[in-house]
Amino acid sequence: MTTPTNATLPTVNARIHPRGGLDILSRAEVAKLADATAGGMHDLLRRCALAVLTSGSQSDDPRAAQELYPDFDIQVHQLDRGVRIDLRNAPAMAFVDGEIIRGVAELLAATVRDLAYRAIELGEEGGRDLDTSEGITDAVFGLLRNARVLHPSDPNLVVCWGGHSINRDEYMYTKEVGYQLGLRELDICTGCGPGAMKGPMKGATIAHAKQRRRRGRYIGVTEPGIIAAESPNPIVNHLVIMPDIEKRLEAFVRIGHGIVVFPGGVGTAEEILYLLGILLREENADVPFPLILTGPTASAPYFEQIDRFIRLTLGDAATERYQIITGDPAAVAKRMAAGVRKVRDHRLAQRDSFFFNWSINIPLEFQQPFVPSHEAMAALDLHHGRKPHELAADLRRAFSGIVAGNVKEDGMRRIEAHGPFLIHGDTDMMQSLDALLRAFVEQRRMKIAGEYRPCYRVVA
Amino acid sequence: MTTPTNATLPTVNARIHPRGGLDILSRAEVAKLADATAGGMHDLLRRCALAVLTSGSQSDDPRAAQELYPDFDIQVHQLDRGVRIDLRNAPAMAFVDGEIIRGVAELLAATVRDLAYRAIELGEEGGRDLDTSEGITDAVFGLLRNARVLHPSDPNLVVCWGGHSINRDEYMYTKEVGYQLGLRELDICTGCGPGAMKGPMKGATIAHAKQRRRRGRYIGVTEPGIIAAESPNPIVNHLVIMPDIEKRLEAFVRIGHGIVVFPGGVGTAEEILYLLGILLREENADVPFPLILTGPTASAPYFEQIDRFIRLTLGDAATERYQIITGDPAAVAKRMAAGVRKVRDHRLAQRDSFFFNWSINIPLEFQQPFVPSHEAMAALDLHHGRKPHELAADLRRAFSGIVAGNVKEDGMRRIEAHGPFLIHGDTDMMQSLDALLRAFVEQRRMKIAGEYRPCYRVVA
Amino acid sequence: MTTPTNATLPTVNARIHPRGGLDILSRAEVAKLADATAGGMHDLLRRCALAVLTSGSQSDDPRAAQELYPDFDIQVHQLDRGVRIDLRNAPAMAFVDGEIIRGVAELLAATVRDLAYRAIELGEEGGRDLDTSEGITDAVFGLLRNARVLHPSDPNLVVCWGGHSINRDEYMYTKEVGYQLGLRELDICTGCGPGAMKGPMKGATIAHAKQRRRRGRYIGVTEPGIIAAESPNPIVNHLVIMPDIEKRLEAFVRIGHGIVVFPGGVGTAEEILYLLGILLREENADVPFPLILTGPTASAPYFEQIDRFIRLTLGDAATERYQIITGDPAAVAKRMAAGVRKVRDHRLAQRDSFFFNWSINIPLEFQQPFVPSHEAMAALDLHHGRKPHELAADLRRAFSGIVAGNVKEDGMRRIEAHGPFLIHGDTDMMQSLDALLRAFVEQRRMKIAGEYRPCYRVVA
Amino acid sequence: MTTPTNATLPTVNARIHPRGGLDILSRAEVAKLADATAGGMHDLLRRCALAVLTSGSQSDDPRAAQELYPDFDIQVHQLDRGVRIDLRNAPAMAFVDGEIIRGVAELLAATVRDLAYRAIELGEEGGRDLDTSEGITDAVFGLLRNARVLHPSDPNLVVCWGGHSINRDEYMYTKEVGYQLGLRELDICTGCGPGAMKGPMKGATIAHAKQRRRRGRYIGVTEPGIIAAESPNPIVNHLVIMPDIEKRLEAFVRIGHGIVVFPGGVGTAEEILYLLGILLREENADVPFPLILTGPTASAPYFEQIDRFIRLTLGDAATERYQIITGDPAAVAKRMAAGVRKVRDHRLAQRDSFFFNWSINIPLEFQQPFVPSHEAMAALDLHHGRKPHELAADLRRAFSGIVAGNVKEDGMRRIEAHGPFLIHGDTDMMQSLDALLRAFVEQRRMKIAGEYRPCYRVVA
Repeated sequence: MTTPTNATLPTVNARIHPRGGLDILSRAEVAKLADATAGGMHDLLRRCALAVLTSGSQSDDPRAAQELYPDFDIQVHQLDRGVRIDLRNAPAMAFVDGEIIRGVAELLAATVRDLAYRAIELGEEGGRDLDTSEGITDAVFGLLRNARVLHPSDPNLVVCWGGHSINRDEYMYTKEVGYQLGLRELDICTGCGPGAMKGPMKGATIAHAKQRRRRGRYIGVTEPGIIAAESPNPIVNHLVIMPDIEKRLEAFVRIGHGIVVFPGGVGTAEEILYLLGILLREENADVPFPLILTGPTASAPYFEQIDRFIRLTLGDAATERYQIITGDPAAVAKRMAAGVRKVRDHRLAQRDSFFFNWSINIPLEFQQPFVPSHEAMAALDLHHGRKPHELAADLRRAFSGIVAGNVKEDGMRRIEAHGPFLIHGDTDMMQSLDALLRAFVEQRRMKIAGEYRPCYRVVA
Repeated sequence: MTTPTNATLPTVNARIHPRGGLDILSRAEVAKLADATAGGMHDLLRRCALAVLTSGSQSDDPRAAQELYPDFDIQVHQLDRGVRIDLRNAPAMAFVDGEIIRGVAELLAATVRDLAYRAIELGEEGGRDLDTSEGITDAVFGLLRNARVLHPSDPNLVVCWGGHSINRDEYMYTKEVGYQLGLRELDICTGCGPGAMKGPMKGATIAHAKQRRRRGRYIGVTEPGIIAAESPNPIVNHLVIMPDIEKRLEAFVRIGHGIVVFPGGVGTAEEILYLLGILLREENADVPFPLILTGPTASAPYFEQIDRFIRLTLGDAATERYQIITGDPAAVAKRMAAGVRKVRDHRLAQRDSFFFNWSINIPLEFQQPFVPSHEAMAALDLHHGRKPHELAADLRRAFSGIVAGNVKEDGMRRIEAHGPFLIHGDTDMMQSLDALLRAFVEQRRMKIAGEYRPCYRVVA
Repeated sequence: MTTPTNATLPTVNARIHPRGGLDILSRAEVAKLADATAGGMHDLLRRCALAVLTSGSQSDDPRAAQELYPDFDIQVHQLDRGVRIDLRNAPAMAFVDGEIIRGVAELLAATVRDLAYRAIELGEEGGRDLDTSEGITDAVFGLLRNARVLHPSDPNLVVCWGGHSINRDEYMYTKEVGYQLGLRELDICTGCGPGAMKGPMKGATIAHAKQRRRRGRYIGVTEPGIIAAESPNPIVNHLVIMPDIEKRLEAFVRIGHGIVVFPGGVGTAEEILYLLGILLREENADVPFPLILTGPTASAPYFEQIDRFIRLTLGDAATERYQIITGDPAAVAKRMAAGVRKVRDHRLAQRDSFFFNWSINIPLEFQQPFVPSHEAMAALDLHHGRKPHELAADLRRAFSGIVAGNVKEDGMRRIEAHGPFLIHGDTDMMQSLDALLRAFVEQRRMKIAGEYRPCYRVVA
Repeated sequence: MTTPTNATLPTVNARIHPRGGLDILSRAEVAKLADATAGGMHDLLRRCALAVLTSGSQSDDPRAAQELYPDFDIQVHQLDRGVRIDLRNAPAMAFVDGEIIRGVAELLAATVRDLAYRAIELGEEGGRDLDTSEGITDAVFGLLRNARVLHPSDPNLVVCWGGHSINRDEYMYTKEVGYQLGLRELDICTGCGPGAMKGPMKGATIAHAKQRRRRGRYIGVTEPGIIAAESPNPIVNHLVIMPDIEKRLEAFVRIGHGIVVFPGGVGTAEEILYLLGILLREENADVPFPLILTGPTASAPYFEQIDRFIRLTLGDAATERYQIITGDPAAVAKRMAAGVRKVRDHRLAQRDSFFFNWSINIPLEFQQPFVPSHEAMAALDLHHGRKPHELAADLRRAFSGIVAGNVKEDGMRRIEAHGPFLIHGDTDMMQSLDALLRAFVEQRRMKIAGEYRPCYRVVA
């Protein structure tokens, strides 16, 4: 709830002429863009823009920024010169002596760019087929290329996953791993919020400075439902807003040359299940994909629990696809660097692109957007006997639903209206799931602040 | 005709991995591109590629290169990494010690890029409306942006028109004008062949070197019908192949901030008529557009004759849109620099883009492709009493037809089959036209080599 | 004292071919350099190199690194290609997978470069007159130019002074001030150790990243006596080792366009006295020089005490040269940016250089090296009635001696041998001095670790 | 002789703030520089500056420019910001719309820089020993480094020697060789005048443009005696003015990685004799040094005559050090590229520098300035039986004297006063020399314009 005093946070009005893609548009494109951002997409744009303008803030409450800046508005205007972005009552923290911070202006332009691409290119007139696997992959490619994150340079992009709400010990560890990765000239891609999404970028920034690497890339890949809760951290220099969580996950897998997973909560569990579900498919048996689960020594039990859950649900074979390392950032970076070199060799041998992993097979069930209604959550089929990747798909959905119930506006509203999601399945699986979720709660991985009230109930 | 010895010109086989736009394509795009270049467009690609690979050659016979390299072939292959261009029996002159010259490789990639854009984006599936004026302008914009010649930098692009077959005195003059333009940090855009299309670029290159301007732009805008006769000169560092002569002319007018016209033949006359026809429209009365006709002192009579022809056909008012300067390259450059500054002010005032002249009005009759059949040529309506811009449109078509009959494969074939085009019109206009054309013949402006046999007959 | 276990810290042998100035030397220069670094200067080089190779370490004990890496050695070899630096038993922390970190290699090359310059250019053969004020200033200029920190760009270099041993609250404040300076595109120069010398650089790094300023300068200016205690922090990308503390202070004043002073101990007091002594000279009355003393709100009493001490010793007039701001980083940065703009205007008006403040007058008494023997310390003339700048000079020396007794090898040895320095002077001045020094001790500003045993005794 | 009308050539007054080395000088250096250029060196500076400001002019009469711009003057002023160059009545051809051409400003700054270096560093106070071989080499190194032409990049610098007065056929050939060298990414260094000194640079410029090599180096190395007659051509982007012809020759040999010799006159003969005299020394037997004599097919007899002269005077062994190729520019470039690769391998193996050939031995007799008085010329010892390199040294001096008598102001004055130089020696050698010189006269290689009156007489 808004307290009256909040309304007095300083604000600024400004006009911005964005560059980098938005400056060379045709009249027709500018018109469509102005239309799209004025029409049905206006509220979405408003919320995403606000997240970007409060970049670096600490809250994970998606409604906090809205309440702090209730009169904020954004309009995209059409000029022959391109577009002009008008901001009203924008957070003063994004400005210095009346001038918008250049990096924030870039992130803002990226927001307009990606929402416009979604409205125009992936909208009805765009003529794309978003019902097939190929069509969805093509859309992911188009969005990423349009965002200029695809470069034909040597493979060096490490995706870091992990919780936005982690303890200080864990946070320092993610920084140290980022530092060790950066020393080895690896770039970083994360979900672009706080915690494990910020630490590796910060560490890599220092390491890149020491290695005199001036063009390090810190790519943040997010989606409209999550950006408000996890406002882009200030290091991000390439921001991409994918249309939904499934395309965001596909983007990570297609552009990353390896993935490091830090401790996290349900979001991180969703990511692990997603990736394992894919890697366990026979079609991907020969695709090299370095995957390392890591944290400070104190988090060893955490990963043991995750490991147990995976063995129970997906089988022992699944554990061959990842490696757990605790308390050794340099070892993580060395191993990852070696893994990325193997990815490079494989791509060269297969004549694959360096910047987009075309050859990994992602089935439609992992691509189709999952809307976590109470019905959909109740209908998940969490039983032994299913193929590992199918079960992984449903487990992924279960975690995805809990994320929504925790921090996404839609999900929170549903929980407020209808009570917690009910999740059914085989007894042992449900017990293990419940134990895992309870551990997340105890370790305060669900939410940054306040007492956590579960948005789910596991029914064995 | 081919002499057998020609067949022995040295050739090379090579594989090229193009960059700059062709390196970040989706699987679907690469497939379409490979399809397009293998199918109906293959012969077109083969001819354009050959022109590029013989860049710098002196002949204006479109069939000469084909006869010198009869076994040349080009294939575009699909890889996940992007495309690969395979050349067989390619002219050795494009290679150094087995490696293709980087600039030639870029022009080759540009050729594939533009033909692919045409086939895919402007083809049937592209969903563009090429029957309206807006639709055509949008296509021109799309092609130019895709070719990366649109930049949001300060206006400084001078288009130079003039003959490919000019005498040495005139050629040296075009170089000197280019030098003076280059000293003033202006960039050059031409039709990219020899003669008046090469001289200004060469002069500007030296001037840019003296001014330490390392990123000078030498843009060549051509079309498939003309590229074979006017192979890109070696200075061109941005090549664009527009689909037809009308879109090529629109490209010049939309991206140029001013135009210099040197002595030339029918092609140059076509260009002058095209531009005046547009500038004379009431809608364009307030659009600043510096236009200078210039040549060495000895070419003063040439421009007097052109001037007379324009006064007779389009009226005295038309002559207010241009200025004739002879024998003074520095004055040309100064005047052009001043004109471009005015264009800049106007664009700023109107919030127009710097890189594309959206506000100039080009009516559909100047945009629709004109196919110079004998019937179409005979049907041209060259009489007094028509609106100046309408008459200009038909005069433009008359000259365009003669260019085709002179140097384009299709046109030459038609003339060989059916004899010269017949051109009808008012007596005084026809006499003036005939005098102009005869002067072109006498001054050897029609063709570089050999005796000229007129492809037209003027009927008063 | 070395504990045996320390000897096991991992080390590396390496050969480095330095760039950036050391790669284009004449045979004679390389020979001199190899000579100088092998002869009398070898131990100095060894110690400085070790400090650089342990960049980022936390200790301020000059002998700690030596004890941790007792077998470390450095040799400079002569090749026609330039020099080669051979390291034996070097700290492994400066390497990644066997390769030296590029930034560390640069700092190492800078160390060799500056010591060589000192030995060759400022040595006996160099033919410079280091006994006159002009001669010393010329040497300072020569060293800085040779170190490539003089650039003819717009004034934007802010020098930050303050303690290496400050509390967390103060450290975070220095970071925040650096951040606010960096947002305003100001670069940072410090003494290059930890604490207040690191915080502003770190903050500016983040701000420069947000402002997309890729070539931010983080200049560290140190001297051989201090570098071992205050090892360069990892952000420094330009390191200069001046021959002694007096030339180091002159370097700060000549290249900085403004100075921010954070809380600190005796070293910081030395710096303030030095600068005020200069600014109070009549010759410098018209030279603009923004000087801001700042810290978090909690440090207000600290600055009040400093302020009182200055009023008592140098008079109220001295306080007009600085401004105290507490708890407001943005205000500090705004005020500094405005001050730097005034400096720029003044330099333009006077046709002064932007990169070296030639016009500020620094008298010989502030330039001559002060060797703090017990006799010299006892001989300081700290009485009322002297001209402010003369008194300031001796007060500066008093603080300088205490710094030496605290953290410099030579000074520490003297204190161990002969007991604390005795400092004489007028009673009120001595009481105030004693109070100030006691406050430094209480606030733990003298040394980072351990119980502090005063190296001085104030005698009223 | 001056005609009065020449005095009316347009002139300009201007103030220039030079960059690139002259912008970061100490007060003392600026004062010395202003002194040097105002005092004894003023006339020298005036003449060199005039040559640079008339860059591109066609005359080889050293007094022509002086007569065309009799009121031209240059003053170097001292500012704390660095130096300011004031020009009065300077040739308008160096300016565009009142602004000096950037490249000309750079050459002008280079002129001041090099003359200042000579006056200050190589003058009496500089403390250098110019009487020893090492001392002279060190001076050459110092001057070149100060001129920033020494770079630690891969060997690729080809020196081109040849006449300033060559026929069109030969000129076009030098361009074509430059083109072929440029295609292979080789950079060009010449004596920086017209003819064979301009052609290769022009050709390489076009080739570099085609290879998209934006940072090609076109280094002109000249000396005050020759610059007035051979004004730098407009392509030169690095100009170095060595103090005398001997240091200029040493500079060519130390920085070039190979040398191409085109047809020329006595200057070219001097250069060949100089180089062979050095390469024939036993100390240099193992130093790889690609040397190619080349010209169009029609110049085969020319090189045969040179070849005969060398065999007669220096013996057959001398001819193993070079290769003659006629009419095949691509072969020249291929051979040179292969030779440069060998130089690279040798330097790597010897740990020699890439940018300065320290290991080639140049004896003092080739380094000491030769002043061609009538006595000195008569005293040359041109007899069989001497060691080849000693004889080569005297033959070099003979040609050097004739160059001076032809085109240098001092030499021309001596000839006007005392008649032609007398050259004595063994009969067969003198006959061969006479034949060679007569051929130069007949082929118009001595002077560009007018009837040639020999400045020498060969006495058998």
